[in-house]
Amino acid sequence: MNRRDFFKNGAFTTIGLGVLSSFSSFTSISNSKLGQAKNIIFLVSDGMSAGTLNMADLLLRNKEGRPSNWINLYEKNTVKRALMDTASANSFITDSAAAGSAWGGGMRVKNGALNIGPNGERPIPILQKFKSLGKSVGCVTTVQITHATPASFCVNNSSRNAMPEIAEDYLKLRFDVMMGGGAEFFSAEGRQDKRDLFEAYKQSGFEVARNKSDMMKADGSKPILGVFSNDGLPYAIDRENNDKLKSEIPTLAEMTRKAIEVLSKNQKGFVMQVEGGKVDWAAHGNDASALLYDQVDFDQAVAVAMDFAVKDKETLVIITTDHGNSNPGLFYSNQANRNFEKLYESKASNEWILNQITPETSPAQVIDLIVSHQKITLKTEEAETILKSYQRGADGLYNPRNLPFMTLASMQSPHTSIQWAGSNHSADFAELAMFGPGSETLAGYVKNFELHNFMLQACGVEKSLFA
Amino acid sequence: MNRRDFFKNGAFTTIGLGVLSSFSSFTSISNSKLGQAKNIIFLVSDGMSAGTLNMADLLLRNKEGRPSNWINLYEKNTVKRALMDTASANSFITDSAAAGSAWGGGMRVKNGALNIGPNGERPIPILQKFKSLGKSVGCVTTVQITHATPASFCVNNSSRNAMPEIAEDYLKLRFDVMMGGGAEFFSAEGRQDKRDLFEAYKQSGFEVARNKSDMMKADGSKPILGVFSNDGLPYAIDRENNDKLKSEIPTLAEMTRKAIEVLSKNQKGFVMQVEGGKVDWAAHGNDASALLYDQVDFDQAVAVAMDFAVKDKETLVIITTDHGNSNPGLFYSNQANRNFEKLYESKASNEWILNQITPETSPAQVIDLIVSHQKITLKTEEAETILKSYQRGADGLYNPRNLPFMTLASMQSPHTSIQWAGSNHSADFAELAMFGPGSETLAGYVKNFELHNFMLQACGVEKSLFA
Repeated sequence: MNRRDFFKNGAFTTIGLGVLSSFSSFTSISNSKLGQAKNIIFLVSDGMSAGTLNMADLLLRNKEGRPSNWINLYEKNTVKRALMDTASANSFITDSAAAGSAWGGGMRVKNGALNIGPNGERPIPILQKFKSLGKSVGCVTTVQITHATPASFCVNNSSRNAMPEIAEDYLKLRFDVMMGGGAEFFSAEGRQDKRDLFEAYKQSGFEVARNKSDMMKADGSKPILGVFSNDGLPYAIDRENNDKLKSEIPTLAEMTRKAIEVLSKNQKGFVMQVEGGKVDWAAHGNDASALLYDQVDFDQAVAVAMDFAVKDKETLVIITTDHGNSNPGLFYSNQANRNFEKLYESKASNEWILNQITPETSPAQVIDLIVSHQKITLKTEEAETILKSYQRGADGLYNPRNLPFMTLASMQSPHTSIQWAGSNHSADFAELAMFGPGSETLAGYVKNFELHNFMLQACGVEKSLFA
Repeated sequence: MNRRDFFKNGAFTTIGLGVLSSFSSFTSISNSKLGQAKNIIFLVSDGMSAGTLNMADLLLRNKEGRPSNWINLYEKNTVKRALMDTASANSFITDSAAAGSAWGGGMRVKNGALNIGPNGERPIPILQKFKSLGKSVGCVTTVQITHATPASFCVNNSSRNAMPEIAEDYLKLRFDVMMGGGAEFFSAEGRQDKRDLFEAYKQSGFEVARNKSDMMKADGSKPILGVFSNDGLPYAIDRENNDKLKSEIPTLAEMTRKAIEVLSKNQKGFVMQVEGGKVDWAAHGNDASALLYDQVDFDQAVAVAMDFAVKDKETLVIITTDHGNSNPGLFYSNQANRNFEKLYESKASNEWILNQITPETSPAQVIDLIVSHQKITLKTEEAETILKSYQRGADGLYNPRNLPFMTLASMQSPHTSIQWAGSNHSADFAELAMFGPGSETLAGYVKNFELHNFMLQACGVEKSLFA
């Protein structure tokens, strides 16, 4: 069925945003040679360089005596693998918006754009496509649910920064499960227009979950909006070391399990994205404890997805990253093993540490704070340098309070043997693993935008349907 | 056949070094389920981080309009892939000796050792095993032929630094093709004991090749020792930009082709190692031009090996690295594409540049030298800093003249957008590709030492034979 025929059938109308309405008699999901997948779970550890995957696995093998779930899939030969070229339309090095748009819209866009092509093209985002085919769809993430990676599967916008607008778009899209952080874009207090979007979602028939127990109670009889913190969710290591956060904020794995539970009720199947978004933030901040434990947290979501897919047998699972970030590694020194072992006992991210420090904190208190939470003993001069950095302000990205992330990270490297090549994205090929129906056709090297049609084909959707 | 029976047959004697003599009636290479490989070509880009493979491919696609041969194997689904854990017996981060020994001897040894285990074990190096089974064997490399990676397939020694002794070992081993650099360990002038090993090799019936035309003439009627420079061979980029070097020094691909030509005459097959050894040196020196063009040079050897293997159908090809080094990457900036394009026109390594500079060179001359060879314009203060570094001496490894590699590299990064996380080895998983008989059994994650038995099995050699 081509697009013209499709529209002629009269079963198809566009509303707002170019959203495609769902309809009950859709038959284009064929059991053709193109693929037998009913469901897709697309997992993204955002900004995961090769060393991040490596160090999280080393951490688990040596701290817990077990491999990471991701690497274990390789060890057991459970998945197909590829390297993925991640370039955007205007750079060898993509941002998350352009990378996500390549998957979400099937074309390369310029950095910063969400499914708006270099010539103004507006490809239909993949979750809109699948929703229009009668599937349930959703996203869960550890950053704002309006952030680049989930948004790239959902909307068209010339700027990833338009998060207040994207929060409104989601209301119109009525996707089945959208969960993460970002209350600032939904609450009357947070929004410049003072509109209470939470209330608007409720009025519109959504279940609005604001904490873990709300989420657990949601039964999927209504679409779910889950927003569990003002901006990004706390880092996994900080959540696990704070009883209040632990009880209130769901893990990525818990969000993933709930989403699958709800979405999989649809007999026509579901498509969802799962993002470990703060892996990228931690890399930008050269924050080793945050990075490794958020990668481990993402890895638990991998297990949830795989558990479902192995039993279900009709689910395509894609596990990947959108780009490298900071290219960290565990580097050679005589003390490297002992240094790395400090990470096993770390109890706080650098972000948490730096947020405890004020210009009034003494150097001795800085030293004490870090040794008690990260087993790293700084020198007095180093503590003084950190304190001075607060007056000087600014370094690092994702750094609203101008915390001295780079200053602290450079002092930590000799103690952890973890080193960084920068604090931004790299052009490194992305690691990609695939399981389930359709995965057998994966080549060992792919370009990010090719995954869009790959997913459609895996579900037996003819490309021409949306052409 | 177990080892006891094997020795009982009387067909087996040990000479010097625990070397196993070849004998004509050997029958243990069975056509069993274990594998059908007759030949093995094992290619190592030494110290290749993920970003090195990535940037060499980007360079070729954008400069020459073609992918790298390595990545093209992925794109065409020609090979199986794995990630390889590269730890040594005493560190998460291996050196080349321990990494090579894991493959060469089948066990993890401490950094610095060549097939001497943590408890004094002396596993038989893999080329000795295959030689004893009647196959032809050899190594080609761009560094000293006595260097850690080739030596790890050949000898047992408690120290990789024993290169003068290893040069003598090779004489006794009588392997069929050994080619690379390292005349300093073979010539009377270079050796402390003033022994002329080149003469000794000739007397012992070797063909000794000292330049490209010598090598081309060798017909394989005698074992070949090829030694083409005093220490390592020049970087590919420096060789290509110097007519004399270009005519005298063979490329890694040319050495590989010659070795295959000679070794493949043996009806019982052959096993060889091909090392792009200066990829590691370039990474230690954060020398971007050297790194990318030596990786490209290695990639040409990949093509030579694959061309043979595709036609031959009985050759297992393994393409990998022994460990990451410096985790370089092409990093985001508005100018990243334009910056990276400078590498397309680079005409010299940093090593070459720094060797032209003397304390008498003026800052203006330094600037001129670099802009004319690398399209990078330094500031006067930067040129002055470089000149001062010569008086101060020392930075970087593999740095016999105390050249200021790191000083120059840090000034280049803003001009090339290539950044580095250090100047030493990392624990990153190694990328591994495999083609040919036996490759179908490769898991997606392996430990480096497992490749030893994997290779034996691929050739149908029972493990117990050497137990």
